[in-house]
Amino acid sequence: MLNKFLIKKGVQVGTGALVISSPALAGTPETDSSVIFNTLLFLIGGFLVMWMAAGFAMLEAGLVRSKNVADICLKNISLYAVACIMWMLMGYNVMYADVGSYFGTFFSLWSPADAELIASSTTGSDATAYASGSDFFFQMVFVATTASIVSGTVAERIKLVPFLLFTVVLAGVIYPIQGSWEWGAGWLDQMGFSDFAGSTLVHSTGGWAALVGALILGPRAGRYVNGTIRPMPGSSMPLATLGTFILWLGWFGFNGASQLALGTISDAVSVSNIFVNTNMAAAGGAVAAFITTQLVYGKVDLSMVLNGALAGLVSITAEPLTPLPISATLIGAVGGVLVVFAVPFFDKLKIDDVVGAISVHLVCGIWGTLAVPITNADVSLLPQITGVVAIGAFVCTSSAVVWYALKLTIGIRLHPEDEARGADIAELGMEAYPEFGKGSQKF
Amino acid sequence: MLNKFLIKKGVQVGTGALVISSPALAGTPETDSSVIFNTLLFLIGGFLVMWMAAGFAMLEAGLVRSKNVADICLKNISLYAVACIMWMLMGYNVMYADVGSYFGTFFSLWSPADAELIASSTTGSDATAYASGSDFFFQMVFVATTASIVSGTVAERIKLVPFLLFTVVLAGVIYPIQGSWEWGAGWLDQMGFSDFAGSTLVHSTGGWAALVGALILGPRAGRYVNGTIRPMPGSSMPLATLGTFILWLGWFGFNGASQLALGTISDAVSVSNIFVNTNMAAAGGAVAAFITTQLVYGKVDLSMVLNGALAGLVSITAEPLTPLPISATLIGAVGGVLVVFAVPFFDKLKIDDVVGAISVHLVCGIWGTLAVPITNADVSLLPQITGVVAIGAFVCTSSAVVWYALKLTIGIRLHPEDEARGADIAELGMEAYPEFGKGSQKF
Amino acid sequence: MLNKFLIKKGVQVGTGALVISSPALAGTPETDSSVIFNTLLFLIGGFLVMWMAAGFAMLEAGLVRSKNVADICLKNISLYAVACIMWMLMGYNVMYADVGSYFGTFFSLWSPADAELIASSTTGSDATAYASGSDFFFQMVFVATTASIVSGTVAERIKLVPFLLFTVVLAGVIYPIQGSWEWGAGWLDQMGFSDFAGSTLVHSTGGWAALVGALILGPRAGRYVNGTIRPMPGSSMPLATLGTFILWLGWFGFNGASQLALGTISDAVSVSNIFVNTNMAAAGGAVAAFITTQLVYGKVDLSMVLNGALAGLVSITAEPLTPLPISATLIGAVGGVLVVFAVPFFDKLKIDDVVGAISVHLVCGIWGTLAVPITNADVSLLPQITGVVAIGAFVCTSSAVVWYALKLTIGIRLHPEDEARGADIAELGMEAYPEFGKGSQKF
Repeated sequence: MLNKFLIKKGVQVGTGALVISSPALAGTPETDSSVIFNTLLFLIGGFLVMWMAAGFAMLEAGLVRSKNVADICLKNISLYAVACIMWMLMGYNVMYADVGSYFGTFFSLWSPADAELIASSTTGSDATAYASGSDFFFQMVFVATTASIVSGTVAERIKLVPFLLFTVVLAGVIYPIQGSWEWGAGWLDQMGFSDFAGSTLVHSTGGWAALVGALILGPRAGRYVNGTIRPMPGSSMPLATLGTFILWLGWFGFNGASQLALGTISDAVSVSNIFVNTNMAAAGGAVAAFITTQLVYGKVDLSMVLNGALAGLVSITAEPLTPLPISATLIGAVGGVLVVFAVPFFDKLKIDDVVGAISVHLVCGIWGTLAVPITNADVSLLPQITGVVAIGAFVCTSSAVVWYALKLTIGIRLHPEDEARGADIAELGMEAYPEFGKGSQKF
Repeated sequence: MLNKFLIKKGVQVGTGALVISSPALAGTPETDSSVIFNTLLFLIGGFLVMWMAAGFAMLEAGLVRSKNVADICLKNISLYAVACIMWMLMGYNVMYADVGSYFGTFFSLWSPADAELIASSTTGSDATAYASGSDFFFQMVFVATTASIVSGTVAERIKLVPFLLFTVVLAGVIYPIQGSWEWGAGWLDQMGFSDFAGSTLVHSTGGWAALVGALILGPRAGRYVNGTIRPMPGSSMPLATLGTFILWLGWFGFNGASQLALGTISDAVSVSNIFVNTNMAAAGGAVAAFITTQLVYGKVDLSMVLNGALAGLVSITAEPLTPLPISATLIGAVGGVLVVFAVPFFDKLKIDDVVGAISVHLVCGIWGTLAVPITNADVSLLPQITGVVAIGAFVCTSSAVVWYALKLTIGIRLHPEDEARGADIAELGMEAYPEFGKGSQKF
Repeated sequence: MLNKFLIKKGVQVGTGALVISSPALAGTPETDSSVIFNTLLFLIGGFLVMWMAAGFAMLEAGLVRSKNVADICLKNISLYAVACIMWMLMGYNVMYADVGSYFGTFFSLWSPADAELIASSTTGSDATAYASGSDFFFQMVFVATTASIVSGTVAERIKLVPFLLFTVVLAGVIYPIQGSWEWGAGWLDQMGFSDFAGSTLVHSTGGWAALVGALILGPRAGRYVNGTIRPMPGSSMPLATLGTFILWLGWFGFNGASQLALGTISDAVSVSNIFVNTNMAAAGGAVAAFITTQLVYGKVDLSMVLNGALAGLVSITAEPLTPLPISATLIGAVGGVLVVFAVPFFDKLKIDDVVGAISVHLVCGIWGTLAVPITNADVSLLPQITGVVAIGAFVCTSSAVVWYALKLTIGIRLHPEDEARGADIAELGMEAYPEFGKGSQKF
């Protein structure tokens, strides 16, 4: 079993990492601290990233109109569940099991039974070994993040079931194939591409899938009329704010645990610096978006500041370790500026992205990936560009195939009447806030 | 002091575990990692389970009508505080101090002063020792969970003070007595009953207490009229969704830290697999409820999917370690199906459970407990049935005594006029959302 | 570099703590567990305290009127970002670098490059060493907490930009100067003042700054008319409740990680007891506020119970280690009672504190600081009083200078018309809940 983490850390892995059966690596004392620290890092990082699913749910629930809130809540909890199940059923092994250059093993269920610890075959050392379940858990919540990105963009007009079917393919096929190219030690890894925690592999991938979905689905009814953009303000800014804070918190796990080890002092130092840089990039993104909206629009825009913080986080994700804190702040700040211009840019193209996810995750994912060589001298620009383009091409193509297949079979778009009434009533027969706003007429 | 954890892990404890005074076990080096890892597991698990109190609060605040939202928020934060204080004042020692077959020591305040580390008397090893305060903290948040289950069922018509008085007895007497039977090494433990993290001891116990409360209290006014069930939709689906995500997150602590040790590699492997299984069971429950409601009702029901995820979590709680991930998914999925049928079943019996807590925590708690032998060959069905029945009988009887005593003295039910106006105005003189919905008329 | 933590723990530090360059202390094995445990404690504590920023945001969003909700959300996320950046740009080194008696080094950027591990020069031992980035991260989220306290008090009438400019000075100058007196080993530390996790240094400091701000800003329009106090109920009690739960959770990191080490069994025991005491104090505060409002007003007041829990937390923060759990409960309960009387007291003085932050953080911060000698025999009352008075005088004076400077230049108060319309429309051109309440008229 090839392992992303060992590879990501630059350890040369031969035909596969050493997998030793339970309960411990041969010769490793049962109470070896390094293995426990490494495992604990994955578990803590994993629950923090799992929590990001709630962050996306709240962010999106706050940014859609009230008639679509219950629907987006349902989509978010369901996509998380579906992504996890697909990951177990096949995704993990497509990404990590016997990866050649382009993908691993299809239709192979993951189970921890015969591989409870994983370590590098080269070092054979327990300093990098960890429980296989903790690695699986950490990877599982990453794929769920990718799926969460899509739901926000295509909200308010996509039907529930086709959206979840797209998630099935995204989590089981699209994400793990492209993921194997880098974290599964495939061809991108071999050519020197570097993406520490997934600016491209996770965020751009979600962003590309969302972009293609938005193009095929078309904008919300009434969004672009006679050359003007009709504002459709989100129903609850405190929920959107809460979602942003949740994502910010979860990102410490996302980036920090992508160090993949806590068993040595060097790792502890690295994880600490990653925490600092992650926080600084988000702060930089938020402040930059604050100032930019003030300068450009004459008013600060809360949803832009929230997206600015997220933009900073996405921007630092490709390389949260090597920058100084001040550099991390600036890398995040560039992301915060980018998002302020990207959101109206996509609107001008009539690409309707309800929550701004394409601007945040795709645009800043690309920026973050290309910015790696600025602070990391071991990485050069060409492989970075290659990775961005190759993964973009693959995800766009494969997503388009899936979206079109769904469109031509069961259909992906709500009936115009249903869209007007809102997905909550149309698809769920309920309201998110039955006693408030328009809903309250009924009671 | 007998200790649930050591016993739960199958270590034979004689007349009591070895308690060695501060700062360390005799002969244990001050920097022994195992003791620190074990303690850290309790602390991390403990704060995650504490966070579940917020999950219940949000779930219930989302599922009651807006006129009762402030009241349910107050109940949730107060019950957590009351349960913690009762646990310190007497609950802990009723459950764990000098337990014979049926209960420990009453009216004995817990304090860490003379027992800062606890270890097994058999092994005498530091691999299973931990700080006594961390154990107390972890146990404390469990009893709070039990109390939280009750509040949702009896919401919208129970008075505040009698509800909290019930919590006093539940946390100080009912929960710890039945808990001592298993985790205090009482008679159920001796007969081979197994309940890893509390499908029966925590969730069914809360569910039984809620069921008896609902029966004695009666349904909400207007709920069952002329043989029809009047829907009373919850006021905020995003809050209910948030609550579910919080509970899902907290459950990693609930089940994971119930391994009770992280001091060896084997423990780290076990905790990792528990994390995976906990997540898969919730995912299985959510997807199963999604599909079942679609098939049975022709529409997906968000609150059922939320309860399905929780049902999956409750179902795996009795045995989150031995199942393969795919088995955990299926065990959770059965829970998700059960809850879809249990909710209308209780409604048919005119047992009014506002949030579906009886279906989730009692029904799936029983299912999870009985399912243990499927994946754990060391456990047989008869002790499992015995435990379910015995604890059910005890909790029902003792709860009924307390609920009736409260009913006959200070009364438990809101005056019909107060119930109509809502508990917020009637009991607190305030509104949860004074500017929205009906409340907004006033301003 | 002098280090607060080592000093706080009573280790004698000479001319400065030993700073050893990356990747490890000389002679410390790369896999030394103590260093990793200490670092991990800071990282876990740090992300929990970061999460408190979301708690303040939700608490304040719930307690302001709906027309100011988006504005308070924007203030909260922006102040966190601004405080973090100022901390990196200069605050950290003002507080910790070459501190004499009164302050450290101004205009000195923090970066981890040349000091990846920090340890006591006296012990030279790795048992207290940790990664410098983890310490910086933990300190950074503390200063953000201080800034969060201010925003609630001055809400609903202060302008956005001057508020953030105040935050710039608070985080970069005021907080670190007074902080250096104690945690930077300045004159207060030398005279025997004790403040374990910051009842005075963090909470009172925020409270004083808020009090002075409220005085200079004046009350909200219409708040005090003809000798009566017009109630201005908060817009969402569940969000306020959620915020309180978040703060409660985060406080385990706030107090627990202020032990500053987890590398020995003694530290693990201490952190455990701190967790227990923190929880008990909050429970005591909540229950005391519950009972007190019932006795005094004849009705329980939810916002008072929420503030009571927070009051308990602030009260125990100066000394969460030495009290027995029952004592911690009582210390918190006194805080809960204090807050019930402090809130109307400030209202009588026409000091308009929207969320009660002065009562919670200042009043109980003082109480907690003065209460230290009750349970900690090594601390005497006189230095405690000195610390409270000195820091109060400094923060009041310096805050007043900054508030007045802002008032006389760009102005700090919303135009009366803007205040009437609400800060959301006036400053952001948006609404927090565009479809509910009054806002819904527009759509």
